[in-house]
Amino acid sequence: MEVKVVQNVMKANDSVAEDNRKFLEAHHLAAFNVMASPGAGKTTLLMATIDRLKDRVRLGAIEGDTASQVDADKVSTTGVPVVQINTGGGCHLDAPMVREALEALPLDELDAVIIENVGNLVCPAAFALGETVNVVILSVPEGDDKPYKYPGMFVRADVVVISKIDLLPYLDFDVEAFKKLVLSVNPKVEFFELSCKTGEGVDAWCDWVADFTAKAKAESEA
Amino acid sequence: MEVKVVQNVMKANDSVAEDNRKFLEAHHLAAFNVMASPGAGKTTLLMATIDRLKDRVRLGAIEGDTASQVDADKVSTTGVPVVQINTGGGCHLDAPMVREALEALPLDELDAVIIENVGNLVCPAAFALGETVNVVILSVPEGDDKPYKYPGMFVRADVVVISKIDLLPYLDFDVEAFKKLVLSVNPKVEFFELSCKTGEGVDAWCDWVADFTAKAKAESEA
Repeated sequence: MEVKVVQNVMKANDSVAEDNRKFLEAHHLAAFNVMASPGAGKTTLLMATIDRLKDRVRLGAIEGDTASQVDADKVSTTGVPVVQINTGGGCHLDAPMVREALEALPLDELDAVIIENVGNLVCPAAFALGETVNVVILSVPEGDDKPYKYPGMFVRADVVVISKIDLLPYLDFDVEAFKKLVLSVNPKVEFFELSCKTGEGVDAWCDWVADFTAKAKAESEA
Repeated sequence: MEVKVVQNVMKANDSVAEDNRKFLEAHHLAAFNVMASPGAGKTTLLMATIDRLKDRVRLGAIEGDTASQVDADKVSTTGVPVVQINTGGGCHLDAPMVREALEALPLDELDAVIIENVGNLVCPAAFALGETVNVVILSVPEGDDKPYKYPGMFVRADVVVISKIDLLPYLDFDVEAFKKLVLSVNPKVEFFELSCKTGEGVDAWCDWVADFTAKAKAESEA
């Protein structure tokens, strides 16, 4: 009985997610679903990406949090359109929440939407939003063993960003061992290594975001 | 309808948690429910605590993970009894899981059980396990703004451990601002600041664990 309810919820979510996907395609928009633990640097990377791409990609942002709107307030200082989703304690975004947020954005003035999911390495992996691509950020202080313990998240990732690499000298994080572990559960994943503090690697990430957005746009117009 | 089901689940959990509480009391055991984000240092602190208290407190451990048993394997090298709970993707421990794990431990040879919850700053806060005390670890790379975004976790905490303080020189983490923020949602919380890498602050934490265990034992025997 209990499982049945859960399955129905998942099915309802998947159906709205599929609808979101078509809605985004109709607006020729790429949507990045960014997932990570609390404090992995989602908002910081979003701010850096907006700053570097401001003349190349018209970005919008959706900020998911269990409470508060500090992230949306921060992101709105960049001038890009941003909508906060406050889940009221809920541990992940879902497709209906994202649909409502999308409709509050000036979609025809945008090329891509970056969706910052709730900080959580478990639950967001189970809920499709209609995103074009799933990005998982893992900050090096979290440790290189995380794919063992949170395989669901790494299976879902299209791209894994290894963040805060400026801290590597002070930690026992083995980048190659981490990548090998991720690839063992998901052989198709693409990696970026960066630090928003030093700026190392951020340009390569931004180039990828711009290229991916252009490609998604071209495909939706084909 | 959906909410009703969720409420029933919560009620059922609370009732088993209450039963766990009596069960622990009957065995004169303190139970520490340790919650944190992935990679905040739960297992590392557990290992350091076991090592320093080995001649003072007979500890047992319960390791919660969504997958794998790497943590339990690590902890078992210390020689203390340890049980792994594999939630099969679930984002938190619940009271029935903990009950099963407790019954697999040699309770009459123990003074306290440390329960390492699933790495998640959202969901574990909603599920009582029957614990004697709730400990939340926040590692400084996660940032000092976390109580804004995850208030539920900090409201539930009896003790907040600020971990990885050896990294403070490389970060913009304001310890006093963080404490003030926690106290604004939970004025009764107690703080520890420590680094398992340098050992700073670990003795004070261990002394507290030992004292708390002795006090809980005395109370249960009164």
